[in-house]
Amino acid sequence: MNGAEALLRTLVGAGVDVCFANPGTSEMHFVAALDAVPEMRGVLALFEGVATGAADGYARMAEKPAATLLHLGPGLGNGLANLHNARRAGSPLVNVVGDHATFHTPLDAPLESDIDSVAGTVSGWVRRTASPAEVGPDAAAAVAAAIGGGVQAAGQVATLILPADVSWTEEAGCGPGEVAPGTPLGRGALDADALESAAKALGSGEECTILLGGDATREDGLLAAGRIAAATGAKVLVETFPARHERGAGLPAFDRLAYVVEGALHQLSGTRHLILAGAAAPVSFFGYPDKPSVLSPDGCEIHEVATHGGAGAAGLAALADLVAADAEAVLAEPRRPDLPSGELTVQAVAQTIGALLPEGAIVVDEGVTSSFAVPAATAGAPRHDLLTLTGGAIGYGLPAATGAAVACPDRPVWCLQADGSAMYTISALWTHARERLDVTTIVFHNSAYAILRMELANVGAVAPAAGSPARRLLDLGDPRLDFVSIATGMGVPAVRVTTAEELADALRRAAAEPGPHLVEAVVPPLAP
Amino acid sequence: MNGAEALLRTLVGAGVDVCFANPGTSEMHFVAALDAVPEMRGVLALFEGVATGAADGYARMAEKPAATLLHLGPGLGNGLANLHNARRAGSPLVNVVGDHATFHTPLDAPLESDIDSVAGTVSGWVRRTASPAEVGPDAAAAVAAAIGGGVQAAGQVATLILPADVSWTEEAGCGPGEVAPGTPLGRGALDADALESAAKALGSGEECTILLGGDATREDGLLAAGRIAAATGAKVLVETFPARHERGAGLPAFDRLAYVVEGALHQLSGTRHLILAGAAAPVSFFGYPDKPSVLSPDGCEIHEVATHGGAGAAGLAALADLVAADAEAVLAEPRRPDLPSGELTVQAVAQTIGALLPEGAIVVDEGVTSSFAVPAATAGAPRHDLLTLTGGAIGYGLPAATGAAVACPDRPVWCLQADGSAMYTISALWTHARERLDVTTIVFHNSAYAILRMELANVGAVAPAAGSPARRLLDLGDPRLDFVSIATGMGVPAVRVTTAEELADALRRAAAEPGPHLVEAVVPPLAP
Repeated sequence: MNGAEALLRTLVGAGVDVCFANPGTSEMHFVAALDAVPEMRGVLALFEGVATGAADGYARMAEKPAATLLHLGPGLGNGLANLHNARRAGSPLVNVVGDHATFHTPLDAPLESDIDSVAGTVSGWVRRTASPAEVGPDAAAAVAAAIGGGVQAAGQVATLILPADVSWTEEAGCGPGEVAPGTPLGRGALDADALESAAKALGSGEECTILLGGDATREDGLLAAGRIAAATGAKVLVETFPARHERGAGLPAFDRLAYVVEGALHQLSGTRHLILAGAAAPVSFFGYPDKPSVLSPDGCEIHEVATHGGAGAAGLAALADLVAADAEAVLAEPRRPDLPSGELTVQAVAQTIGALLPEGAIVVDEGVTSSFAVPAATAGAPRHDLLTLTGGAIGYGLPAATGAAVACPDRPVWCLQADGSAMYTISALWTHARERLDVTTIVFHNSAYAILRMELANVGAVAPAAGSPARRLLDLGDPRLDFVSIATGMGVPAVRVTTAEELADALRRAAAEPGPHLVEAVVPPLAP
Repeated sequence: MNGAEALLRTLVGAGVDVCFANPGTSEMHFVAALDAVPEMRGVLALFEGVATGAADGYARMAEKPAATLLHLGPGLGNGLANLHNARRAGSPLVNVVGDHATFHTPLDAPLESDIDSVAGTVSGWVRRTASPAEVGPDAAAAVAAAIGGGVQAAGQVATLILPADVSWTEEAGCGPGEVAPGTPLGRGALDADALESAAKALGSGEECTILLGGDATREDGLLAAGRIAAATGAKVLVETFPARHERGAGLPAFDRLAYVVEGALHQLSGTRHLILAGAAAPVSFFGYPDKPSVLSPDGCEIHEVATHGGAGAAGLAALADLVAADAEAVLAEPRRPDLPSGELTVQAVAQTIGALLPEGAIVVDEGVTSSFAVPAATAGAPRHDLLTLTGGAIGYGLPAATGAAVACPDRPVWCLQADGSAMYTISALWTHARERLDVTTIVFHNSAYAILRMELANVGAVAPAAGSPARRLLDLGDPRLDFVSIATGMGVPAVRVTTAEELADALRRAAAEPGPHLVEAVVPPLAP
C-alpha cells in the first residue's frame, strides 16, 4: 500500500476516523485513499480555518482527535488561528499538512515555505515523515502525542508533515497499535503537596476560591467542587473561557470568572487561597494601562492541585475526599426564563434561548458582547454543554459547531455567533449544509465590532466621534451584512428576526426540522 | 504624541498612506490615531487575509507599500497565505502586527503566541519595537526594508510587531525621513558577466529563450525583450505567474511559460541558452511521480542577468543595447475576439472578456482552470495590467482586486475568480462595497475543484468514481453555492448568467455603473 493509505489505516486503527479536509495537489493521494479506507469519514471545508476549528470542536465533544488535511504552508496558515484555539483548549488533534515531494523541496517552487516553523507555534509535537516506511509509525506517534497520557496534561496539536512522494510511494505499512481506540486523554499528575496545602487552606476558615479548568468543568469535577463548597464555604468559579463546560439543571451552577477586569477583581477580592483545579492562574485577557494583569489579590496563596488543562476533576475528587466526605453539592433546579416579547435586545435573545434550549444541546458561544446574558439565562435549562473561545482567535464559532455536530450527531448544536466574528470563517455554513448537520446558528447582528468600542475605552484611547475615520473601523453597518442572503447562498435556510416572538418561532421551527438553520437576530449593540 | 500616532506620522511621511486593517484590542490606539492623522486612509477588512491580499494588490499597482494592521498571532496567521503570495510577488508591504503590552506578555494570556516565528516565514525583515522612542525609527526602517533599494532585489514584507503599551505611551517621536515618498523599489544589481555571456549566446546562432520576471514584465522590459527577439530570433516567455504583466495592443505579446509540465517542456525544448531577466530558473509548480521538476532542458546554459524579482527591465535594456541596437519590437495589433453567443463555456467567457475589456483595466486572475483561455483572448485588447497568483496560496483574487482598486481609483478592475478559491476570502466583497471600489468580479462557477481533478491524474492517483468519498472531496455541487445571494448579502450587486449574451450584458452594465459588481458565470468544469 502507499503512504497515504498506510496513514489512513493507522489513524483509523487508533480510533481517529474523521478528517476535516481542505486538500490540494500534494494531498491527492490522501484523498484517493479515502475510497480504499471507507472507515475514515472525510468532511470537506471550503477554508482551512473551518477544518481546524471543526477538529477542535470535534475533539472537545468526542474526547478524541480528528485529523485535519491541509495544503502546505499557506493551508496551515489559514488554519492557524483555530489551531491556536485548539492549543488553548487542550484539544487533541492530528494535524496533517501535505508538502511538496522531497525531491521538489530544494527547488523553491512558488508554494514552498517554512511549514515546520509555523507548525511549531501551535503544536506540542511536529514531525516530518521522511520515508514511506515511517508513515505508519509516525501516524501512530502523532495520535499518541495528540492524546497525551502519562504526565502530559491535556491533549495537544500533533502536526504531521507529509511530503507528497511519501504519500504516493508503495512501500508503506501501517503503524504499530501504539494507541488503542478509546484511550482517554492524558491529564497529568496531581500535586500531592498542593492537595495537602489546599485541604489545609479549606479548613483554615480563611477565604478560599476554587478555579475550575481542564476536565474540572465537566460533571465529575463540578460535583466534587460542589461538595467542597458545601462543606467548607469556598467560592467556586469556572475559568473565563472553558473548553467544555457542562451546565444546566441537576449540576452545580458556578459562575465563570469575568472577562472584564473589574468584574474578575471583584469576584476574587478577599480570596486568601486560590485553588487551581485545571485552570491557569488568572490573568486579564489583555494588558491595560491602568488595570492589573494579575487578577488574584496581592498576597493570595496559590495551590495548584492540577496543572492547566490537566486533572482538575481528579484533583477535586481527592480534595473532596479530604475535606467534604459527607457533603452534598447544591444542584441547579430546573428553571427557565419566561419567553420575552417585543423588540429584540441581547437580554431578550438570552431569555429566549434559556426558555427553548433543547435537552442535551451543545452551545457553541462566540457571541462576544451580545451573548453575555446567556449563561445566567441557561443555568437552569436542561443539561447542555457549553464550548467557548479558549484562545481568543475569533472565527471559531461556526467551525467548532461543525465539529461538535459531527462528533454528536444525535445532539442539537446551537451556535451563538456575533456578526463580526462570523465573517472570518463564514464558509463553515456550507459544510453545515453539506453534511446536513443539526446546527442552529443564531447571529447577533449589531453591525459593529462592539467589543472594540468597549476595549477602546479600556485601553484609554480617545473615543472617536461618530463617522470619524477611527470610528468607521469599528462599524460594520456600511454596507449592512445580510446574513439571510449569505446563509441561503451557502445552502443553509435562514430567517431574519427583529422581535422576541419571531425569534422563538424561528428557533422552534429550526428544532423541528432536521439539518442546519440560521437565524439572524437584529439587536442593538451593547457598548456605546 | 503616543507611539501609535508616531507610527502613522512616520509612515505617512515616507509615502505609506493606506492601511488595510482588521484590528483588535491591542491595536485600538492605532485606530484612534487615524483621527489625528487623516492623511492615512484606513480600509477595513472583515478578515486578515483580505487585508494582506489587498496590500499585495495595492503594492503591485502603486509600486509602493501599504501598511496592514493585524491582531496578534492569530491575526497574522489569518493573513499568512496572502503574505506568502506577496513575498513571491516581491511586493513591498509594511505588515504591522499588534501585540500584548510588554508587561502582559510573560503571563501567557489566551492570545499569547509566537508571532516572531510565524512572521519570519514570510518577511524579509522583522522587528519588535521595544519602546515608544523606537517606534518612529523602526517604522522608517520598516518602510526602507519593504521598498529595498541598493542590492536588495524587489520589495519584501517588513513586519513590525508593536506591543500595545508602546502604542499608547506618550513618549514617541516620528522617525527619521529614511525613505522619501516616491523612492523606487530596489531591483538589485545586474550581473555584468551574465550580461556578457547572454549577449554572446544571443549572437551564437544557438537557440536562446529569454524568461521575463520581476519588472521585466512591464512596458520597458517587454519592449527591450521585443527588440532582442527581433534582432536575434530569441524566443521570449513570461514567467508562469507574474506579479504584474502589462499587456494588450501596442505592447509585445509574449506567451507565459505553461503551468502544465508538458506544456512548459514543449515551450523550452531545444533551448540551449536560457536568459533569466528577473525570473527564477523554471521549475514545475508541484513535483510529480513521472515528470521532471526542472523544466529547462538538460545541458541548457543559464544566464541570470538579473535575479528573481530584480532588475529584469534594466538587464534587458542593457542586453538590447549590446545585441539589438537598431531593432524594433513587434507589437500586438489591436484585435478583439467577436462576441460569442449561446451557452457559456470557459472559451466563451474568455472571448467575451477579450471583446469587452475596458481600456486601462486591471485584470486580477484567480480563475484557475477556468481562465486559461483569457490571455490569448486579451492579447490584442486595449492596454491592461494582469496580476496573477504568484505564490499559489489561493484566496488572493478578491483581496488583490481590493488593493488594486484602492491604488488605482480611476481604472476598472476585473477580477476573474474561480468558485472554489473565491470562498477562502469571500468577505473581500464587503470591502468592495464599503469602499465603492470599481471592481467587477466574474466568478467562474463550475461547482468543482476542477484543478484537483486534473492534478489527481498528474500525481498518478486512481481517479475516484463519481459519488465516491474521494470524489466528493473535489466536488462543490452539494449544496450548490449561490454567489448572487452571497454577494448581495455583502452589499455587492450581482447577477447570474448562463449564456454569452447575458454575460456581455452584465459586463456592459457593470462597466456603466460605478462601484462593485459580481457576475456569476455558470460554466462546465474544464477537467473531467
